[in-house]
Amino acid sequence: MFQDFRRRTTPATGAPRLAALRGAMAEAGVDAFLIPRADAHQGENVAPRDERLAWLTSFTGSAGMAVAARDHAAIFVDGRYRLQVRDQVDVGLFEPLRIPEDSLGDWLASVLTGGGRVGFDPWLHTQGEIDRLAGVLEPRQVSLVRVPNLIDTVWTDQPAPPAEPIVPHPEGFAGRSSAEKRAELAAGLVKRDLAAFVLTFPDSIAWLLNIRGSDIARTPVPLALAILGADGRVSLFIDPAQAGPDVRDHLGPEVIVAPRADFGPALDALEGRVGVDKVRAPVWVADRLRDGGSEVVWETDPCLLPKARKTEAELAGARAAHLRDAAVMADFLAWLDAAGPRGDLTEIDVVTKLESLRTATGALRDISFETICGAGPNGAIVHYRVTEESNRPVRPGELLLVDSGGQYPDGTTDITRTVAIGPVPGEAIRPFTLVLKGLIAVSRLRWPEGRTGRDIDVFARAALWQAGLDFDHGTGHGVGAYLGVHEGPQSLSGRGTEPLLPGMIVSVEPGYYREGAFGIRTENLSAVRTAEIPEGGERLMLGFETLTLVPIDRRLIDPGLLGLEDKAWLDAYHARVLAEVGPAVAPETARWLAAACAPI
Amino acid sequence: MFQDFRRRTTPATGAPRLAALRGAMAEAGVDAFLIPRADAHQGENVAPRDERLAWLTSFTGSAGMAVAARDHAAIFVDGRYRLQVRDQVDVGLFEPLRIPEDSLGDWLASVLTGGGRVGFDPWLHTQGEIDRLAGVLEPRQVSLVRVPNLIDTVWTDQPAPPAEPIVPHPEGFAGRSSAEKRAELAAGLVKRDLAAFVLTFPDSIAWLLNIRGSDIARTPVPLALAILGADGRVSLFIDPAQAGPDVRDHLGPEVIVAPRADFGPALDALEGRVGVDKVRAPVWVADRLRDGGSEVVWETDPCLLPKARKTEAELAGARAAHLRDAAVMADFLAWLDAAGPRGDLTEIDVVTKLESLRTATGALRDISFETICGAGPNGAIVHYRVTEESNRPVRPGELLLVDSGGQYPDGTTDITRTVAIGPVPGEAIRPFTLVLKGLIAVSRLRWPEGRTGRDIDVFARAALWQAGLDFDHGTGHGVGAYLGVHEGPQSLSGRGTEPLLPGMIVSVEPGYYREGAFGIRTENLSAVRTAEIPEGGERLMLGFETLTLVPIDRRLIDPGLLGLEDKAWLDAYHARVLAEVGPAVAPETARWLAAACAPI
Repeated sequence: MFQDFRRRTTPATGAPRLAALRGAMAEAGVDAFLIPRADAHQGENVAPRDERLAWLTSFTGSAGMAVAARDHAAIFVDGRYRLQVRDQVDVGLFEPLRIPEDSLGDWLASVLTGGGRVGFDPWLHTQGEIDRLAGVLEPRQVSLVRVPNLIDTVWTDQPAPPAEPIVPHPEGFAGRSSAEKRAELAAGLVKRDLAAFVLTFPDSIAWLLNIRGSDIARTPVPLALAILGADGRVSLFIDPAQAGPDVRDHLGPEVIVAPRADFGPALDALEGRVGVDKVRAPVWVADRLRDGGSEVVWETDPCLLPKARKTEAELAGARAAHLRDAAVMADFLAWLDAAGPRGDLTEIDVVTKLESLRTATGALRDISFETICGAGPNGAIVHYRVTEESNRPVRPGELLLVDSGGQYPDGTTDITRTVAIGPVPGEAIRPFTLVLKGLIAVSRLRWPEGRTGRDIDVFARAALWQAGLDFDHGTGHGVGAYLGVHEGPQSLSGRGTEPLLPGMIVSVEPGYYREGAFGIRTENLSAVRTAEIPEGGERLMLGFETLTLVPIDRRLIDPGLLGLEDKAWLDAYHARVLAEVGPAVAPETARWLAAACAPI
Repeated sequence: MFQDFRRRTTPATGAPRLAALRGAMAEAGVDAFLIPRADAHQGENVAPRDERLAWLTSFTGSAGMAVAARDHAAIFVDGRYRLQVRDQVDVGLFEPLRIPEDSLGDWLASVLTGGGRVGFDPWLHTQGEIDRLAGVLEPRQVSLVRVPNLIDTVWTDQPAPPAEPIVPHPEGFAGRSSAEKRAELAAGLVKRDLAAFVLTFPDSIAWLLNIRGSDIARTPVPLALAILGADGRVSLFIDPAQAGPDVRDHLGPEVIVAPRADFGPALDALEGRVGVDKVRAPVWVADRLRDGGSEVVWETDPCLLPKARKTEAELAGARAAHLRDAAVMADFLAWLDAAGPRGDLTEIDVVTKLESLRTATGALRDISFETICGAGPNGAIVHYRVTEESNRPVRPGELLLVDSGGQYPDGTTDITRTVAIGPVPGEAIRPFTLVLKGLIAVSRLRWPEGRTGRDIDVFARAALWQAGLDFDHGTGHGVGAYLGVHEGPQSLSGRGTEPLLPGMIVSVEPGYYREGAFGIRTENLSAVRTAEIPEGGERLMLGFETLTLVPIDRRLIDPGLLGLEDKAWLDAYHARVLAEVGPAVAPETARWLAAACAPI
């Protein structure tokens, strides 16, 4: 079982650990210290060793930052975690503050009146982050100083760094050899007069070298560092034990495997202009490069855009993974339809059942994120994760929202379905249908090249807006190919300023949340494709190919709110689901699926 | 008759005038000189005295820039004017270059190899413009130097500056007194620690002081300069003869009228922080302020946003103006429907007829822009203006696109209708209907506060995109209240980053253009309003109130392409047009209108 429902931290550890940290601060000669929920790689998930924020504050959310000063301490969390932080953290010790409304800089300046020294670990912060903070602090006589990680000095039973085996990612799945990718990126470096590019984002390194790993949960990557040279060679810094003979053979002679300790000296040895990603690489990298005499050139990680544009092989893998996952979801929804109305299930039962069905495929490498399973009012908590304490019965007459996904060797899935448990709650039908209209509007949309996720996001909302409703999250995010389930640079949201390009995979997940009552979200993954030019069409348009093949609860749809084109899309979608998934499931599930996919 | 169809320039004057200018350049000691199509006020229209670009090059378009060097000269125009520039200008003398593809800075640097001095008139360029250009030229040893306008020294029969009477704009139309507006803006200056703000944009001054003028065509403003003090007082710099006793009485004791020559000394007398709009004020203003010891603070003209948000009185005026204009349009379209199919009309006949009908209302102060009237293929030229040379017969079986508007004391109108002349060209029906679907989608849309014109623009395009079609201009622009027909800061386009706010008036004008065949555009003006909260609605939404009340050619609509909601909108719109405009027109027109407004 990948998912765990235990409460693993307690607020009671906050006081002694904070006291220990303050001792270390005094010894290091700093007045404050920053504790981000980040490792050196700035990914979404971190290894147990890097759970410094949770160790100190007991807060286990996926984003946040604590700051300890001599007499004050605070924890900054975003809107998702306002309630959770109060539940997990001793708020008498750590004042809970809001991201982005409250300013870390202002808080520090207000606590360090008359100036002071704020320590930070240069491995855990990017230059972008530190520059922003320095802009606020410097005019107020507060300085930022690099120190070794002070948590590590007081965390006596800190786990060791992960060093799990690396495996080759077959070219049959990747669609391009690592040599080809490296040659292409190296040509770009030459063109931009860069001697090398320092890669610190594990997803990028895994993509570039066609490798996968399991150093952290949910994202199948090794926590590696790498330097790509303008000659197409790569130095890969890992624990050498992670790379067995098969991997070394796969990497070939142009990829040099070196211990992580060699990373600094390798940076020292670089000369000339070296590319570094300002919002992804640790400050430590740029410091070391400058100390070694190189010129740091800030550029976006060059792997990001080509990684986002999937190859035909990756798209074929995504289709296979989605078909496999759809069969799981059909079994799951059929089971839920039978078992749910009996009234004896809990949220944890549902999560456990779904994971066991995915595991039974034999192909599941991990879940792609902690399943969100919210019954009734819990569905309205957008990032709800069930624990043994919060676990709620799944009651007939309520909605159940399940957002989950799998990491398969051929692709990453992410799907949300909201279903009625037994009797349909009438008040949910209208918003459910409006959310569906948003999903359909985006799924049907065609647009000219150059348009961005921001241009598309609004179509997911228009039907809700018409009814005086909206949802407070983006419409969708990029998704990797057996990589991170959240992947940039594309985004269907107000922040989506990157043009959508053929091959990109995105989620489309409009929702509606009625606090204290229920939550609705319907999510499909889609791939950007060149659209067929219709008769009389003059311009090339892009559009979506829907990858997710799972029925949408027909009982929650008011056909009277659907236009003809909405109905045509829905019926065609369900017909496709039945045709593709029906043959892949057992007869009993196939019968359930046929009913679930009947025309509206 | 406001509009004029004569060709007023000839390429033949280019050579002698350019030679004279080069003489003046030699005397002034510069190697090149810039001739923008701009006056000191950076508005869309300029007085005859300021038509320096047309005088030198014979190019009469509404935007562009010429540059003369010793042995080379060029003229930069945007996409609208690629053909016109070749027709009007001696391109052997002035190399035609493209905005924005070609760079003025690069051209200058390539001509002035080894460095040189580029002269410019500091009254005709903004700091933003000069900074950008200097950024390109300075690294190449080319300097920008301020000189008196060299065209003025060689243009012997240059007209005098306009000095037309200023008239009060009644508070009944404005809805707020000038004193109230001045007090509000002055409070803002105090808050931002500004001693004064220099206003150079005539629309802003006219709005702030509730005055109108007629110094330039199409926009009813005086070409004034002004200084708003943090005490709410204004110094207004004009030709004192422009302000008769009624205006002086209207302006009151807190508005000091001074001759334009006093503007410089008044800037000298300012102290402390003074606000200036970097993209609207001439460089001359900031130069003079700095020379006088003031600190220049770059801020957006503070009148822009409140001017864009119309008062209830201005909206009532807009409704009255649109009703009057709609009656004109009904007469016009009824006439066209009868006269067009006979086949003996030309584009100029149509423009003349429409203007005469607007004039006959007795309320027309000016047309709001040169009418665009394109028959058949001329309709596909987005900014086509008919001249005696281009004048084309209006042929039965073709489309006619007419984009026009009026300046009335209570409001500014702008409307486009595309109609079939006699037999309907079948190939136009589908794109016409898709354009209409875009208009309807935007007109029906509701959206939460904070959304911008960019978010709305895409809804005007989605139906066209679906068919592989698009149009290459924005969906709409802001419109003033008896002021400029193009008004910022709002814009329904990719550049529309300003949130739409209640009271803003915008055009909604999707189109489709088939080169060499026909053009389609349907344009209504709409006001942003707080939408009624529908049953079950939870959030405040904004929406549009359509102001334009003119039938849309039903013969060009394929009802099979309209959704139920499209049809409901169209029928309700036509019913409203008939109910409101019917009683305002003669019985014959009313009969035509009833048929034109029948349900689809």
